[in-house]
Amino acid sequence: MSDLTLAPELSVSEWFNTSQPLSIAGLRGKVIFLHSFQLLCPGCVAESLPQVRRIERIFANTDLQVIGLHTVFEHHDAMTPTVLRAFIHEYRLTSPIGVDQADQRSVIPVTMRRYGFRGTPSSVLIGRDGVILHHAFGVEDDIALGARIGMALAAPIPTATSAEEIEGCAAGVCAVPADAA
Amino acid sequence: MSDLTLAPELSVSEWFNTSQPLSIAGLRGKVIFLHSFQLLCPGCVAESLPQVRRIERIFANTDLQVIGLHTVFEHHDAMTPTVLRAFIHEYRLTSPIGVDQADQRSVIPVTMRRYGFRGTPSSVLIGRDGVILHHAFGVEDDIALGARIGMALAAPIPTATSAEEIEGCAAGVCAVPADAA
Amino acid sequence: MSDLTLAPELSVSEWFNTSQPLSIAGLRGKVIFLHSFQLLCPGCVAESLPQVRRIERIFANTDLQVIGLHTVFEHHDAMTPTVLRAFIHEYRLTSPIGVDQADQRSVIPVTMRRYGFRGTPSSVLIGRDGVILHHAFGVEDDIALGARIGMALAAPIPTATSAEEIEGCAAGVCAVPADAA
Amino acid sequence: MSDLTLAPELSVSEWFNTSQPLSIAGLRGKVIFLHSFQLLCPGCVAESLPQVRRIERIFANTDLQVIGLHTVFEHHDAMTPTVLRAFIHEYRLTSPIGVDQADQRSVIPVTMRRYGFRGTPSSVLIGRDGVILHHAFGVEDDIALGARIGMALAAPIPTATSAEEIEGCAAGVCAVPADAA
Repeated sequence: MSDLTLAPELSVSEWFNTSQPLSIAGLRGKVIFLHSFQLLCPGCVAESLPQVRRIERIFANTDLQVIGLHTVFEHHDAMTPTVLRAFIHEYRLTSPIGVDQADQRSVIPVTMRRYGFRGTPSSVLIGRDGVILHHAFGVEDDIALGARIGMALAAPIPTATSAEEIEGCAAGVCAVPADAA
Repeated sequence: MSDLTLAPELSVSEWFNTSQPLSIAGLRGKVIFLHSFQLLCPGCVAESLPQVRRIERIFANTDLQVIGLHTVFEHHDAMTPTVLRAFIHEYRLTSPIGVDQADQRSVIPVTMRRYGFRGTPSSVLIGRDGVILHHAFGVEDDIALGARIGMALAAPIPTATSAEEIEGCAAGVCAVPADAA
Repeated sequence: MSDLTLAPELSVSEWFNTSQPLSIAGLRGKVIFLHSFQLLCPGCVAESLPQVRRIERIFANTDLQVIGLHTVFEHHDAMTPTVLRAFIHEYRLTSPIGVDQADQRSVIPVTMRRYGFRGTPSSVLIGRDGVILHHAFGVEDDIALGARIGMALAAPIPTATSAEEIEGCAAGVCAVPADAA
Repeated sequence: MSDLTLAPELSVSEWFNTSQPLSIAGLRGKVIFLHSFQLLCPGCVAESLPQVRRIERIFANTDLQVIGLHTVFEHHDAMTPTVLRAFIHEYRLTSPIGVDQADQRSVIPVTMRRYGFRGTPSSVLIGRDGVILHHAFGVEDDIALGARIGMALAAPIPTATSAEEIEGCAAGVCAVPADAA
């Protein structure tokens, strides 16, 4: 698996729109669309979040899991969980959204650093085997994004055996320390 | 002037993008486009604020005065001046914006009540003589809005004498108490 | 009137959407929005004709006269009056449209040359006194266009005397020969 | 194969953008996106043809075959091959486009009838095994369309044996007479 990258684990301080915390490990076998945004990011509000809503609608009857990550790396005093809660309400966002864990030593939160997101909006598509299939900074073309998700959903669900083996690899990747940067 | 309405005065607790507080009375002789918004209002962010930017650009060389009014009537704990300041920075808003004075007895702020705005986005176009030429709730068609502003700018600037007379009337209208509702 | 240009007369071989031929001279006193297009011009179909429809709707209750001019300067074998008739039907165009008179000696039709249109879409806004107020190649911003039309409509209707005088000047300008180029 | 429908063959009187006539049978093994349009159909020009261009760009490096079909069922005197040629040039259409064979006994051309297209724009997505995977009247959502094409491309290429068997079925379906309606 030399040139495949397993998706690192999430580090979330607060969840919205879900009664249970989500984890990459716990979703193994599903395709995951993880999108990173900030509520005061104009491109997120105008383009990527409407695209997320289209994805939610189009793939509602599949086992695609959409997860939002509020990766605040500027205006920390403004984009608080209180404001995020009102934002989620006003923008009618319905899929699970986690607040990326703040890092005391950096303006970049923990999960954002693990994934190497360069800014917002960013997204990664994670395959059924936990491998990152695509990494995007900015908003992608709808047709290309649809094709990628369609191809990922068309892939066979990994068997228990191969899943376990991959899990081993995954653990290694997840071990990448959050304070590496 | 039986069926004309003079624009009531602004009541603003904090100004952004201007070193001097603005007033309707002080702008007599100019055409004013006053737009009311909330930073967590999706229609404002997606439609009315981009339209305001187009207005600012198109009428940059005229004496049109654009004024924004942050009329918070919900999520008061989220849409604070701290968040507004970051919002103005991220959305590159350049014309003067005032925070509508909160009313201790109501969720509706003071100026919003005086103007009878039903929600956000709302706007009023005020003529050179201080009279409200048009009142809109929601976003108007660009061509219609351009035509209205063009016609208002084409009107002759009132003479000192008539301005004074109008000022008298204006005072009467401004006397409408803020706590009337 | 040294730096004002009176609108040259139309030369039209066939009219649609009107039982009477129209002329610039016959519309003196009205504001005219004259737009030039070709039915196989992508920018006309995608942008300028939809804008014309918005203008028709917004100014329906004013005395603005919208006139379309089919200025074919390429693909003459394809953009015939038969195709134009079907095009007008399918695109639901309702204001008068004239087929610009073909010129045997040039690919450029007669009226297009008189106005100096560089291509399609083009448009001119003609004031109540017959003077060209604005000349555009390409599609203009809706707000700017609305403002220009609004200001033109706000201008006083010329008196009979001044209209006659201007008519004299207009004759001079209309005398610019079509074969001048 | 009780509930699968094999794509009927094309009947084309003139091809553009290809030196060789194309056929459904000859493309077996590839995914085909067949889109039906008319050059005077506003929805085709404004929405479906731009979408086709996005598809061409996004799937340029795959073995997806895009085919346009000019299915004239109204204004036959206006939408001739001469006009289509100029249209293709002006709109920069690059994938193969066939003129659907006119039917002397009907306003509906031959291939349009075989496929049961209700109007324009219509499209069908045909899998590597020649089966119609999806049939659409109107313009589909980009993400959904991308997902469908992505899933179709992800399907394994049929082996020679199974292809032959399918060919047998296909012949039966192609035998559906053009004058069936």
